[in-house]
Order: sequence, then structure tokens, then C-alpha cells
Amino acid sequence: MLEEGSNVTTSLPRIALTMGDPAGIGPEICLRLLQDDALLAECLPLILGDAEVLQRCSQAIGVPLQADVMTLPPSTEAGWTAPFASLAKPAVIDLQQCAASEIVPGVMNASTGRASFAYIQAALDACLAGHIDAVTTGPINKEAIRAAGIMFPGHTEMFASRTSAPRSCMMQYSPEITCTFVTVHVGYAEVPELLTVERIVDVIELTVEALRRLGTNTPRLVVCGLNPHAGEHGLFGNREEERIIIPAIEVARKQGQQIEGPLPPDTAFLPDRRRVTDAFICMYHDQGHIPLKALAFDSAVNTTLGLPIIRTSVDHGTAGDIAWQGKARPDSLFAAMRLAARLSRL
Amino acid sequence: MLEEGSNVTTSLPRIALTMGDPAGIGPEICLRLLQDDALLAECLPLILGDAEVLQRCSQAIGVPLQADVMTLPPSTEAGWTAPFASLAKPAVIDLQQCAASEIVPGVMNASTGRASFAYIQAALDACLAGHIDAVTTGPINKEAIRAAGIMFPGHTEMFASRTSAPRSCMMQYSPEITCTFVTVHVGYAEVPELLTVERIVDVIELTVEALRRLGTNTPRLVVCGLNPHAGEHGLFGNREEERIIIPAIEVARKQGQQIEGPLPPDTAFLPDRRRVTDAFICMYHDQGHIPLKALAFDSAVNTTLGLPIIRTSVDHGTAGDIAWQGKARPDSLFAAMRLAARLSRL
Repeated sequence: MLEEGSNVTTSLPRIALTMGDPAGIGPEICLRLLQDDALLAECLPLILGDAEVLQRCSQAIGVPLQADVMTLPPSTEAGWTAPFASLAKPAVIDLQQCAASEIVPGVMNASTGRASFAYIQAALDACLAGHIDAVTTGPINKEAIRAAGIMFPGHTEMFASRTSAPRSCMMQYSPEITCTFVTVHVGYAEVPELLTVERIVDVIELTVEALRRLGTNTPRLVVCGLNPHAGEHGLFGNREEERIIIPAIEVARKQGQQIEGPLPPDTAFLPDRRRVTDAFICMYHDQGHIPLKALAFDSAVNTTLGLPIIRTSVDHGTAGDIAWQGKARPDSLFAAMRLAARLSRL
Repeated sequence: MLEEGSNVTTSLPRIALTMGDPAGIGPEICLRLLQDDALLAECLPLILGDAEVLQRCSQAIGVPLQADVMTLPPSTEAGWTAPFASLAKPAVIDLQQCAASEIVPGVMNASTGRASFAYIQAALDACLAGHIDAVTTGPINKEAIRAAGIMFPGHTEMFASRTSAPRSCMMQYSPEITCTFVTVHVGYAEVPELLTVERIVDVIELTVEALRRLGTNTPRLVVCGLNPHAGEHGLFGNREEERIIIPAIEVARKQGQQIEGPLPPDTAFLPDRRRVTDAFICMYHDQGHIPLKALAFDSAVNTTLGLPIIRTSVDHGTAGDIAWQGKARPDSLFAAMRLAARLSRL
């Protein structure tokens, strides 16, 4: 497998990339990645997926599959991590989880969901065994995952469970705006009962730790309120700001953290504030994702903090409506691989 | 009071402008307005407030008070509307509601709250009597209003109550993005129980009606979901999308409305979508205000739909931290006056 000069590339961070749902845009953005010399100079991608799916997608969109293929049939699952160490060039680890001829682009179901989950399990195996430096995950479909009987609402929860992380949280990172989340994939109505002083302090601590790893020694944080106008001193809401958010901020300030808040969610993200803020602590999914998508669409990277392994992800979904058409932009995947590489070197 | 040439200006829309909380930035943006020849060519502003407050503020920031002053002492409240018809130049209607020497810039209290509410009452009197064409409201402070024992959470509710409007809603209008709101000034946790099919249909109808008045005959609407990913087909939340939002959309579509939705709140506002959308129907305050502030800060105009009178407002608060320092930008006020004038001419 090794070729002349391959020793040069082995010093690169080795990043397991899960292909995502086979019927989504995951396969085609993996193909784009393998074409990008600049990115391949920064990291060594090992794609966990189905080679035949990638080949069919390659024909559909006219982008060649440029990587070695190593087949790991399902029966050898116990040995999934063994051959990783010998790989020194971009490779596809063919896990043979689905019948490529049955994939209908855009149609995600129990079968594609099950396959996308298997890629993640394989990546976790490899990472926990210490054979790779980080995991970057392609887009999965939550309904397909659920249809396969897998009861995790998202990657963050899968990784937290498998690694038995005592505490973890989602971070969406971009040069323009970075957010971490106290709650993520839960219904709107469930959010208030999930807010506790301890959880908010945990998220603040995880955020500070991550920003330090990325080079900011004394990060400046903004904590958002829950209610409109951050409750306007108790005028709206059930005093969640006074009862929960402010006490959490006080605990974190005593630890020496630099925190503004709780700020009204609609003015927290204005340009002047963004310029002096390293991260925003958001109480719920859309509070942070609305400004993230508006300001950093296609460039924000999703990473899970608090895990014993490094994990980043694209910040978009499976985009079934444009799957296998060659239209999907790989920007978010490239940014995710770069952040994984950067975190791996620390 | 009338001067030569005044007949020319009397054809302009006559707009009552409430000064807002005396201790906020309301007074200084009123002074800026009176200096702006372009705006004065589009409408005739009649400022309802305290002349002595405007004079003190004028000295503080070095911007002259350029308007006639007509004093209406508190005892003549019953006749507040009488003299309006004779005014043909920009004027301050001096309602003498507070002692100017006691105002501390940035310090809003029961006294300033009570005064700001009186200006609104006077504007409503004048408008309901048919002596003016529209009302534009300066910024008030909700806590000061409440400290004065006045139990309205905001302008929208004051206007709806006084005019006995059977249904009304907030619209935030800007060339870049326009949102209307199913709920506004309520706590985060109260939103789900306030969502009904009827209320959402009402807001859709009010929105279509307003956009038609502004010249769009077949407006294209987006209705946002409530939950992350619009519930992802029931995966998150209590199926508010399936139970309430989708049935409302179906009712409106049967009426012939062009509606997309329910869309995931974080991707609903992306540039491609905004370009083909005349208004977004938002389920709660921050769902619409976060993108509004991010994309149209200082230019969005708040207007209340469903009232028998035209009412627009600045989209910012009293900004106590910079009050009476000459720093406040009048852009939002100017936009609010222009929209009031535009709606008045229809």
C-alpha cells in the first residue's frame, strides 16, 4: 500500500471522515474533498463508508473517486481498527453496509440510516483505539436514524454516550461567530426545564477550555437570556434569568471567566458585540443557529466539546433535494476537516 | 400660527410622533428629525411630549429645537385634539407631563413612564378623532411603564386595547426582511400554549393585507416552525407543527395565499429564501427579532397591523446608556415616519 514519499504524509493528522447518509450529499462532498490538494496537504482523510456508493455517486456527478479502497467486510467488525495504522494516503475504508444499487438519491430510510450509524461506530472504534487523531462526520438524517431503531437524536449524543463523557456540549465554530449550546436537539417546550445552574456552568467551562485550545487564553463570553429582552428584569417569563442564568454567570465569574450577560437574545449578536466576543452561550438550538446560519452559512463547524476524542462535523444536513446532482458545496466539510486538524495538533 | 406658504405643507401626511420616555433617547431623535429637510418634505410631524424636556435635551446635545411649541396643559386634556387641525408646520404639542429639571438621562422610573404613556394617549385621542393621519411612537421603557402602574407590556397592546381591535399583530418592516409575529411580549415558556390555528391564520391574513397596502398584490410568505428543524416531522417537540402550524397554513392556502412552510427557523432566513419572500410569519419574539436585528438593525420599522389607525414605531429601546449624549442614531425613527407617511397616502 505504501508508496515512495508516503512517509511525508504520515505526519499529517489522521482524520476519520464518516460518509454520512448514502442517499444524501455526504458521498459527493467526500469525493470533492479527495480532489482538493490544499486540504490534503493539511490532513490525511480516511473515509468510512461504502466504496460502491462512492463509485456510483462519482459516475452520477462526474467527479472521480481518487483514493485507495480498503475493504472491511461486516464480518471483520471486531478488527475494524487494526489496519488503520498502515494507511499513509487518503483512503476509503469500505464497510459494505448497504447495497449501492438500491440507493435512491434523496430517499433516506431505515437502511441508509443504519449504514450511516455503522460508519460512525467504526470511526469511534478507530478513534478510541488511538489509531486516528480525530473524527469528522458527514451529514446524517435524524429520521432515517430513528427509522433504523437507533434512539440518538444526533451525533453529539452518540459520541457522548459511546465515550461515556460526563458532560459535553455542541459548539458551532467559525471565524465570524462561535456559539455553544446549553440545550440542542429537544423540543421548544422542553428547554426551560432543562436549564440548570450546573449545566450552564458546565457549558461555560467547556467553552473556555475549547477556546484556550484554539489559542485564546482569556476568552470573552456572552451568555444569552432565555426570554425576550432577557426577561426585562422579570417582566417576561418565569424569571429564568434571575433564578438560573445569573447565578450560573456568578459562579463562572468567581472562577475568573470574562462574561457579559444575560443579554437580550436579539441584540446579543450585533456587529459591535461580535467583535469583542469569542463565544456566545446559547440556551437553545435556534437562538444560536439563526445567527450562525445568517452570518456563517457554509463555514461554521460543528464540534462536540467535553469528549475524550476530537470530533467535528459539517453544519448542514443531508440536503436530499440536491443529493447526487453535483450541486452540493463542500465548504463546510473542508472547514470541519481543517478545525479537526488544528485541534489534533495541540 | 399660520404663515405664508403654509398651505403647501398642509397636504403632507400629518403624523403624531410621541416623544417616548423623557430619560431615554426619544427626545434627541425628535430634535434630529426636526433638522432633516428631506423628511420634513415627506410628512408633517407633530411631536407629543414635553417642550421643556426637549429644550434641556437640546442644550445638552447642542442641537436646536426647530419647531413651534403649542402648550396643552394637563387641565385641557379633554380638548387635546382640538387645535391639531390648525397646525401646518412641524410643532411640539407640549403636554407638560413631567418636571424637566428632575429628569436624569438614563434613569427611567414611574414618573417618566407615566409621562411617556400620556403622550401615547394623546396621540390616540388625536388619531381616533381624525385630526391626524398616523402615529409614530418613540421608545418607551417597559419597566418604567409598569412602575407607573400601567399594565401593558408594549405599544402594540396599548393600541390594540384602546382601539378595541378584534385582532392585531406586530410587523417589523424593512426592505431587507419583514416579519410578523404570532406572539411577541410573553415569556419563552408561554409561547406553545398561545399558538392556535385561528391566531396563525389571523396573522397570515393581517400580513397579506398590509403587504397589499404596500403594493404587493400576491405576497409570498414563509411560515416558520416552532421547534428546531421545524420538529423534523415530529422528532422534536409536541408536534406543534403537525397539530397547529400546518393546519393553519392549509386554511390560508385554501384562501389563495402563497405560503412556504413550516420551515426550520434557522434556515428560513437564508439569503436565497429572503430574496423570494415578502414576509416571514414568526412564532415568537426572538425567532424574528434575531435575524431582523442582524440584517436590518436601525432600519426596520415596527408597525401594528389590524388597527383602525396607522401606527409605526422605532425598533429600538430607550438606550439609557447613551441618552442625552448626542450619540443616538435617528435612522429607525426616520424609517418609521416614512412608512407611516407611505401607509397614510394609500
